[in-house]
Amino acid sequence: MIPRYSRPDMVAIWSPETKFRIWYEIEAHACDAMADLGVIPRENADAVWKAKDVEFDVARIDEIEAVTKHDVIAFLTHLAEHVGSDQARFVHQGMTSSDVLDTCFNVQLVRASDILIDDVKALLAALKRRAFEYKDTVRIGRSHGIHAEPTTMGLTFARFYAEMDRNLNRLEKARYEIATGAISGAVGTFANIDPRVEEHVCEKLGLAPEPISTQVIPRDRHAAFFAALGVVGSSIENIATEIRHMQRTEVLEAEEFFSAGQKGSSAMPHKRNPVLTENLTGLARLVRMAVVPAMENVALWHERDISHSSVERNIGPDTTITLDFALARLTQVIDKLVIYPDNMLANMNKFRGLVMSQRVLLALTQAGVSREDAYKLVQRNAMKVWEEGRDFKTELLADADVTAALSPAEIEEKFDLGYHTKHVDTIFARVFKEEA
Amino acid sequence: MIPRYSRPDMVAIWSPETKFRIWYEIEAHACDAMADLGVIPRENADAVWKAKDVEFDVARIDEIEAVTKHDVIAFLTHLAEHVGSDQARFVHQGMTSSDVLDTCFNVQLVRASDILIDDVKALLAALKRRAFEYKDTVRIGRSHGIHAEPTTMGLTFARFYAEMDRNLNRLEKARYEIATGAISGAVGTFANIDPRVEEHVCEKLGLAPEPISTQVIPRDRHAAFFAALGVVGSSIENIATEIRHMQRTEVLEAEEFFSAGQKGSSAMPHKRNPVLTENLTGLARLVRMAVVPAMENVALWHERDISHSSVERNIGPDTTITLDFALARLTQVIDKLVIYPDNMLANMNKFRGLVMSQRVLLALTQAGVSREDAYKLVQRNAMKVWEEGRDFKTELLADADVTAALSPAEIEEKFDLGYHTKHVDTIFARVFKEEA
Amino acid sequence: MIPRYSRPDMVAIWSPETKFRIWYEIEAHACDAMADLGVIPRENADAVWKAKDVEFDVARIDEIEAVTKHDVIAFLTHLAEHVGSDQARFVHQGMTSSDVLDTCFNVQLVRASDILIDDVKALLAALKRRAFEYKDTVRIGRSHGIHAEPTTMGLTFARFYAEMDRNLNRLEKARYEIATGAISGAVGTFANIDPRVEEHVCEKLGLAPEPISTQVIPRDRHAAFFAALGVVGSSIENIATEIRHMQRTEVLEAEEFFSAGQKGSSAMPHKRNPVLTENLTGLARLVRMAVVPAMENVALWHERDISHSSVERNIGPDTTITLDFALARLTQVIDKLVIYPDNMLANMNKFRGLVMSQRVLLALTQAGVSREDAYKLVQRNAMKVWEEGRDFKTELLADADVTAALSPAEIEEKFDLGYHTKHVDTIFARVFKEEA
Amino acid sequence: MIPRYSRPDMVAIWSPETKFRIWYEIEAHACDAMADLGVIPRENADAVWKAKDVEFDVARIDEIEAVTKHDVIAFLTHLAEHVGSDQARFVHQGMTSSDVLDTCFNVQLVRASDILIDDVKALLAALKRRAFEYKDTVRIGRSHGIHAEPTTMGLTFARFYAEMDRNLNRLEKARYEIATGAISGAVGTFANIDPRVEEHVCEKLGLAPEPISTQVIPRDRHAAFFAALGVVGSSIENIATEIRHMQRTEVLEAEEFFSAGQKGSSAMPHKRNPVLTENLTGLARLVRMAVVPAMENVALWHERDISHSSVERNIGPDTTITLDFALARLTQVIDKLVIYPDNMLANMNKFRGLVMSQRVLLALTQAGVSREDAYKLVQRNAMKVWEEGRDFKTELLADADVTAALSPAEIEEKFDLGYHTKHVDTIFARVFKEEA
Repeated sequence: MIPRYSRPDMVAIWSPETKFRIWYEIEAHACDAMADLGVIPRENADAVWKAKDVEFDVARIDEIEAVTKHDVIAFLTHLAEHVGSDQARFVHQGMTSSDVLDTCFNVQLVRASDILIDDVKALLAALKRRAFEYKDTVRIGRSHGIHAEPTTMGLTFARFYAEMDRNLNRLEKARYEIATGAISGAVGTFANIDPRVEEHVCEKLGLAPEPISTQVIPRDRHAAFFAALGVVGSSIENIATEIRHMQRTEVLEAEEFFSAGQKGSSAMPHKRNPVLTENLTGLARLVRMAVVPAMENVALWHERDISHSSVERNIGPDTTITLDFALARLTQVIDKLVIYPDNMLANMNKFRGLVMSQRVLLALTQAGVSREDAYKLVQRNAMKVWEEGRDFKTELLADADVTAALSPAEIEEKFDLGYHTKHVDTIFARVFKEEA
Repeated sequence: MIPRYSRPDMVAIWSPETKFRIWYEIEAHACDAMADLGVIPRENADAVWKAKDVEFDVARIDEIEAVTKHDVIAFLTHLAEHVGSDQARFVHQGMTSSDVLDTCFNVQLVRASDILIDDVKALLAALKRRAFEYKDTVRIGRSHGIHAEPTTMGLTFARFYAEMDRNLNRLEKARYEIATGAISGAVGTFANIDPRVEEHVCEKLGLAPEPISTQVIPRDRHAAFFAALGVVGSSIENIATEIRHMQRTEVLEAEEFFSAGQKGSSAMPHKRNPVLTENLTGLARLVRMAVVPAMENVALWHERDISHSSVERNIGPDTTITLDFALARLTQVIDKLVIYPDNMLANMNKFRGLVMSQRVLLALTQAGVSREDAYKLVQRNAMKVWEEGRDFKTELLADADVTAALSPAEIEEKFDLGYHTKHVDTIFARVFKEEA
Repeated sequence: MIPRYSRPDMVAIWSPETKFRIWYEIEAHACDAMADLGVIPRENADAVWKAKDVEFDVARIDEIEAVTKHDVIAFLTHLAEHVGSDQARFVHQGMTSSDVLDTCFNVQLVRASDILIDDVKALLAALKRRAFEYKDTVRIGRSHGIHAEPTTMGLTFARFYAEMDRNLNRLEKARYEIATGAISGAVGTFANIDPRVEEHVCEKLGLAPEPISTQVIPRDRHAAFFAALGVVGSSIENIATEIRHMQRTEVLEAEEFFSAGQKGSSAMPHKRNPVLTENLTGLARLVRMAVVPAMENVALWHERDISHSSVERNIGPDTTITLDFALARLTQVIDKLVIYPDNMLANMNKFRGLVMSQRVLLALTQAGVSREDAYKLVQRNAMKVWEEGRDFKTELLADADVTAALSPAEIEEKFDLGYHTKHVDTIFARVFKEEA
Repeated sequence: MIPRYSRPDMVAIWSPETKFRIWYEIEAHACDAMADLGVIPRENADAVWKAKDVEFDVARIDEIEAVTKHDVIAFLTHLAEHVGSDQARFVHQGMTSSDVLDTCFNVQLVRASDILIDDVKALLAALKRRAFEYKDTVRIGRSHGIHAEPTTMGLTFARFYAEMDRNLNRLEKARYEIATGAISGAVGTFANIDPRVEEHVCEKLGLAPEPISTQVIPRDRHAAFFAALGVVGSSIENIATEIRHMQRTEVLEAEEFFSAGQKGSSAMPHKRNPVLTENLTGLARLVRMAVVPAMENVALWHERDISHSSVERNIGPDTTITLDFALARLTQVIDKLVIYPDNMLANMNKFRGLVMSQRVLLALTQAGVSREDAYKLVQRNAMKVWEEGRDFKTELLADADVTAALSPAEIEEKFDLGYHTKHVDTIFARVFKEEA
């Protein structure tokens, strides 16, 4: 985790304080269930809740762990210091450390998902606002980085909206994948603990009981979770790449926002760097790099080995913190992106109408000109534009062979941008699922 | 694609013949829609269907492509040879190559998904059958490769079932992700083609119209698709690893099947290698390696660049073919896996009852012995087992300090395997969602 | 392997014919060594060489393998058909299949390396030629896609040369890593075969004996090999990305070559797509995707498991074939890249001298103007350029406060491009290790 | 970076204090060079060295950065607070931030390499010691996890030695790759700074001048660096996997060390988990996951974009810290690994001599028995061992058909372990390059 690329709410999920709090809740709810089942005395279960408002002392727990060499035991020892060691003697009965650790990890991932889901929703709101704002702002569409046909800036935002909307769905699925808990004992047989304890704890924590666990919750769930995050990261790179292209000096169709203060640095007004989106490109790589190790974690030996643990200690916090930061940063970029419609028009006209050559070609053939002749007509006028810098429409209107086939009005029509934007509303209605 | 790791049905999806057939259907349905909309004459649309039963001549198309340097044009030229070039003159009108290529690719991925989904269903059937067959067959559960507590072979199969059942769900979601088509023109604006053409073609091909495309269908869909396959691959590795462990000489709790012929090679009866599951471990790596490039494919420049294409030409066929083969191979392995219950028992008893030491420890404390004393009692008997090869239960029954706290019957009960299997039915009911 | 992205020489290395030929040589040389050691009769060793000019019949070997289910045995059986089964009876004595398979694989990788090394040398020659050709052709250097300071096209080529020169070194190291053979028996102890056989075979095949093998040659060698290829692939992406940027419509500083035939398609002269470099970007991803599975292959169980095999059957041919094709394609692109120096100048002047603003700022402070005042002076003139489209130098020359600090000649000098190119020769001397 | 998986010396390399110290040295040496060249006054260069023994105040620099939003400027401002702002006014003249940042990053990577190289050397010493200690300790070699032929524990250590020795070489190469610096200005042309400044600074810092840089040092160097680390990580996984296998209950040929204190927990003496090597398996995944993003960092746009930066802020420290910790942990594991030679023998004899069946088969054929008959003879005796638990040698000696072909002494010889260890010295001489 790199502090400069992190936000406090997500960081807090991964703090020792939060972790111990979740451990506490797991243990306390488990005691409740065991008391209900008559396995332990009710008063001992009640006693555990005395620590309900305690802020656990992380330094003290670390101190105990330095002796016991076992994190869960250290916590339980500290808990007993609050509850009273006699009262606390049934805490954790029949459970293994993994019951606590794995269930806690999933609670953390679920909470992380909730933040990420909210992040994406905020991003969607920004994208939608900007999409409608620039719905009809024409710019040139490019394939292979080369001018193709006109599109609109609104469509660009709309396609990012649609992509992020799919990512919202993926994150919701990822959250669902990971929202399970397990209190099933050393090898998952419930030999020493009743399955109803698991059911109770999970219900209280907003989880589903893992249908079958071993010592651990199966790691295909986590692999799917981090894979989903990797896809979201890749979409962030996609949007960031578009903005970086738009901001490059020769294109200049958009710029990342710059505060009034930054504006002051206008001794070099041409030198505003898309550093936020470049940074997002790098962050996407960081999010993505968790995917393969998460998949390598799936094949644990027999009922568990601990190879996954160090991986998850890293990618659990790092990947969610990075993605949260990246989504928030992207939302800010989108929200404040400075758009230059005039430059969009200027770029489109760089080759004075040539982008319409294919429409003209089609129109000529539809008007009965043979494909070969139509091609020659377009070519001879196109080359004047390309080599001599003339205007395509003007040349066509002055070419008798062209005007023999197409009337001036018909030629004019081929240069009408409305032709290209006529279905924008249809697309918006599809994307935003409402009348555009 | 490695021929020895492929099966014909999946290979057929990626043949040129299949591809051209799908192209044909896209073009023919598009003509129908355009005729319905009055954009082209009905008779021309009808004429295209004359080629309905034609097997396209791949060699001939290649020959044309060698001249035109364009695959879609080569196909259309060949199609015109069947339909008549005058009749065919409206085919592909207003469309771009990508409309055909991307829609076709998704049709292929959908068909591949259908096979993969069937593969997983067959695997699930095998796992379920074996789970019930060995539901109560006790074996030792292992954490860290070390004996922990008893579990059953049925539970092992059941957890693989549960994992593959989640994978079934992931594949269905992946199929859904990829089941879209686009006929939207050079930059996705429908400038030259009515959106209803797209709707018609998609409906006929079993796809949903892509809500917003550029020149291409957005690649986050494909990233999510291959990520799902990567998770399935990782689960295959998980199951394969378990079997490889079970078959190793010192464990020998199971063996991959060997045909009567192979059985003949019993001059070395100890040397039956788990080559199928080792192979599956490698195949899992191949499936997984498609995930990162598929994610790198998401960030295309502007309305498209073609960097994704070479990647997909590879991972499209290779990953689906490999995964199909791997799933089928795994199903066969599971189906015929030779299980050795006697060896399972023998392994569990390797340390003559020591695996029950924790239960005894717990029983002693519950009987009122202090934690320290209980520990000493267990330890001194355990060490006799560990160092002198005695039997744990026998030692306990002969230890007066132990029998002072626990009756012989109570001691006996700690070694009762039923204690560990008492919730197997509960777990089976959860996993198989039916009374076990 | 995708046929359209392959070249025959590299493909040939991976053909069954080549493989069987290498197997033959390993076996024949091993027989020679065994005869020299007196382990087998000399005449039997000599007899094996009778098959020296035989083209092995792949179909026949496949036929035998269908029965024996073992590729090496099938080959040996076929070999005996040529040599005579009595004469051939000592072939392969004391060896295991892996001795043949692993040694052969490394021979193939060495040969593949030789081609790749030649590929890089050809690329270096092209880069060097173009570097000198455009050594002094000024273009704007860009950081963050934004104009920074002038550089030259020659420097761009030169840095790609330097990068590929490092890659040449990496490939030579990779070749060295992989140039080992092993004839050491079932677990690498030479129990059944003298180590001098290994030495002889390796010497004949241009390999070093693997100092210690198990059943297999250790796979860290292969991981390092494919990692090196992954770095080369990434450099290809780097160069391809530069060219894609240069070719985009708004920049147009270079274009991939187009043949006379292609030129004919000049009805859309603006629409020449950098499809080769886009393709190279995708191919780089394919090369890179082999790295992780090759690393996952390192951890084999005990003296070997066969999980690596299926991975290598794929990445062995696919990665070397793809990289060979990519290097050759890139060489062709570089060789024929069409450079537009006029557009480079035009781009640099897009903001009429503003890229020099930092030099002016520095000059003012060096002339004694305070940093704050210098900033204001530059800013007020810069904004006239930025907002009103004026020329920066003209404005500066007309600003009395500026000319109070800097003489017209000094101002002129700040716009002298020679300032930026004065060390080009120094850099060239470093890169090309010769007087530039 | 996970504190529990880190060691202080490597962590210190990545501290802000170290970073600022390196920045300081770069700036101070650059001033020296500029003074020597007459570009700035000598006294100003000397003045900078006044701060030579200053511990820079990180909090103060952060405070300034919060205002300036620029890390290098913040540092320079703080430096001026020590040197005096008038004296400091030539510091950084003609340089860009990247000159400082990139050169510093490489200094850090070089220092990290030095630690990693020492780590590997310590590991090699441990492996060598254990190799000689167990040079002749026979254990069964296993292919596919199945008993094959005898080998020795010393050979196991020796092959890990050889693998790590190659890794030492790779790390030295990686260090060499990364040991460059650049002080070349905004786009690498040395427009504002003499190349001799770069030469001087690099010499003082133990770096080679980067032959050609842009704004940044080319990232193929870093890709190669992290790829090398990924290979080392994979080798760690390889060794860890072997130990995990050896420690599993059924094998128990070795155990990770356990301190006297841990030994106390002998109430469950069978339950000593190989948690260190399992942890190493996970750490290997973390090391490896840096490889792909490092490769994705190579293709920067034009003279630089900043996408690589966030990636390197993470993988720079995290990967080197993790690998350092992993190497040290592995060294400790190897150093103290508890080896059980008796269990090795017991395991080898699990199937009472059957592992020798192939030698017997060979001996029979060499004695003139036909292949078919020899096979039958071995098989019928082998099956008695396999099915009835008899001893293979005893059965053979009692089989008249066998003894007709082989004398009792010849049969005995087939079971002589010396046959398998006769070349151990040869192999050791190869590996340790000295007389064994």
